[in-house]
Amino acid sequence: MADPVLVPWQDNADNAPGGVRAVVYNGEGDPPAGASDAVLYVVPYGPGQRLDVIAGMPRLRAVQVLTAGYEHVLGVLPDGVALYNGRGLHDASTAEHAVALILAAQRDLPTWARDQSAHRWRPFYTRSLADARVLIVGYGSIGAAIEARLLPFETEVVRVARRPRPGEGVHGIADLHRLLPDADVVVLVAPHTPDTEGLIGGAELALLPDDALVVNVGRGPVLDTGALLAEKGRVRAALDVTDPEPLPAGHPLWEAPGVYVTPHVAGGSATFYPRARRFIDDQLRRWATGEPLANEVRAGR
Amino acid sequence: MADPVLVPWQDNADNAPGGVRAVVYNGEGDPPAGASDAVLYVVPYGPGQRLDVIAGMPRLRAVQVLTAGYEHVLGVLPDGVALYNGRGLHDASTAEHAVALILAAQRDLPTWARDQSAHRWRPFYTRSLADARVLIVGYGSIGAAIEARLLPFETEVVRVARRPRPGEGVHGIADLHRLLPDADVVVLVAPHTPDTEGLIGGAELALLPDDALVVNVGRGPVLDTGALLAEKGRVRAALDVTDPEPLPAGHPLWEAPGVYVTPHVAGGSATFYPRARRFIDDQLRRWATGEPLANEVRAGR
Repeated sequence: MADPVLVPWQDNADNAPGGVRAVVYNGEGDPPAGASDAVLYVVPYGPGQRLDVIAGMPRLRAVQVLTAGYEHVLGVLPDGVALYNGRGLHDASTAEHAVALILAAQRDLPTWARDQSAHRWRPFYTRSLADARVLIVGYGSIGAAIEARLLPFETEVVRVARRPRPGEGVHGIADLHRLLPDADVVVLVAPHTPDTEGLIGGAELALLPDDALVVNVGRGPVLDTGALLAEKGRVRAALDVTDPEPLPAGHPLWEAPGVYVTPHVAGGSATFYPRARRFIDDQLRRWATGEPLANEVRAGR
Repeated sequence: MADPVLVPWQDNADNAPGGVRAVVYNGEGDPPAGASDAVLYVVPYGPGQRLDVIAGMPRLRAVQVLTAGYEHVLGVLPDGVALYNGRGLHDASTAEHAVALILAAQRDLPTWARDQSAHRWRPFYTRSLADARVLIVGYGSIGAAIEARLLPFETEVVRVARRPRPGEGVHGIADLHRLLPDADVVVLVAPHTPDTEGLIGGAELALLPDDALVVNVGRGPVLDTGALLAEKGRVRAALDVTDPEPLPAGHPLWEAPGVYVTPHVAGGSATFYPRARRFIDDQLRRWATGEPLANEVRAGR
């Protein structure tokens, strides 16, 4: 009998290719019988993310996590075991939320929501997304997903990343100050590193035109909260991530003019599960045929 | 000297081709000197839409309005004068608002707005737009603009119009009842006619799955308000148009569970002006060269 692989959902077990013996473990309680022989462990997603059970799997050759981050696994990963992450599984959800925030801000949806609460029918002309020039800062797979969704809205997208990639039309961060004065919308999808902390501060916000919109779906500290507050609404913002995070009651960002906040929910929506299930199906197919698995972040032996 | 044409904006006068004498009239006060000789009148948009001055233009050959609707002009249009409308000028704005409403409803933006008012950081997983099957009912130029914006969100779009157009993949309205049970989102962009009044009533809503979303950016009476209220939140709605309209204070739709209302603002946003200016420039170019003008709704003589 083939060595077992542990998968989080019954669908994956049902779809497992011939030669792969898939055993379901959703992270609740102890692993099922035979799990100690597992050679591949797909770690369940969410609060039940059980890494402790890895120590009881001496024959393990590979671990698959469904998050993009994987640093938390390295400390418990035995020597010689390969690690794969969930890069890309959250792109559709995050990109969708980024565009939702841009549209909500441009079309004044929070104003209409307040008017609805007051039973007030008070139409006026709003800004629009059409014709906007949108800077995507931290252009990678999520940035590309945002761009694909923005282009049919008759926008112009300008790509910015840490290093210039002229072949892909990506500006380096050194061009940022030159690009900001012509931006209507700036979308931040950069990770939090020493280089990106405070990347958008007082000097950068000052370069933006009046009424520009900054959207942050990356990491809170990339945008300097104090500098944004000092703009007093001259530059608007829609923030799914904040600094500090979670934002405590009484923090001035909650009440800042022109600032919309959602509580770090961009990546977590119903999009995730079907994409994760398909991805695991694909990984099991690769495992069965001996093809290298996708999304390797640490090689095995 | 060439016969004058009346345009609403100085930009159009500045861009007028050789041979066209463009005179600016923005609808405020009396028309300028020479307007009585006008051969083409581009009626100013908005509250200043002055149709009364047409009677003082005996040499008029054509009238251009910037609205899609033109019924209000027919009564004052002298015999033999051609009429052109603003079909298409509002498509980008309306399509953008329709997608904004869909995303806001799927990603629970009004909930986050309320949480922001309460300084409450309370993340949870939301629905998404990705993977949704979206029925567009009343598929025409605005429907196509909505579709173009939806497709990159990894959705499936199903086109429905009054008459089937098999060559374009458009279902006829006779298929509606068969299509509703598989729809996650229904977008209404139909005009108000005797055929479309109450098109979505109790029977149609009952065919929709639990938690489906109905978006109306067409005309209020196409959706039966009483039938929607009777759903008590089983089917959600995001409505830019309502019946009655404007919605009076105290109307139950304001407080209906899962219903979001915006006050008929889909077509009116900053997108309109640049598109209207470009359209007038193009019409003047056609006028100068003798090419037929676009968007004719009544022929001249």
